[in-house]
Amino acid sequence: MKKVRVIVRLRSGVLDPQGKTAEHALNALGYEDVKDVRIGKVIELQVDTALEGEALNARVGEMCDKLLANPVIEDYEILEG
Amino acid sequence: MKKVRVIVRLRSGVLDPQGKTAEHALNALGYEDVKDVRIGKVIELQVDTALEGEALNARVGEMCDKLLANPVIEDYEILEG
Repeated sequence: MKKVRVIVRLRSGVLDPQGKTAEHALNALGYEDVKDVRIGKVIELQVDTALEGEALNARVGEMCDKLLANPVIEDYEILEG
Repeated sequence: MKKVRVIVRLRSGVLDPQGKTAEHALNALGYEDVKDVRIGKVIELQVDTALEGEALNARVGEMCDKLLANPVIEDYEILEG
């Protein structure tokens, strides 16, 4: 069983109102040194496979392209373990 | 300017219907080796501070306790850089 973590983030040009709201709220709470907040998703998968490294990443990348991320507005990053 | 990444996840006993839905959808797409999917948030902050290491983590931990995470149902993990 392999544990894979996928980080899905809005692309850098895309407005992130949820992040902006958190940023303003933190500033209002006195954390005025917080300058930019972006909020994305982290998806943790348990995959029952013998695949490792590049091959496993390719398979999870396929899942991201098909279902887990929206490539028009989102980027993803695959982290193993 | 320090970049800090916070992973906010549902605690392990807490049901994750969004994760279950993604899991069933992946299984239906032919990825039957995907056994467990949990979906959380990743929050990326730019903090304009001289703090480092433990002190920076403590400050961001405070933000999580006050605003970014719900400690009743969520856990968080702070990653620098």
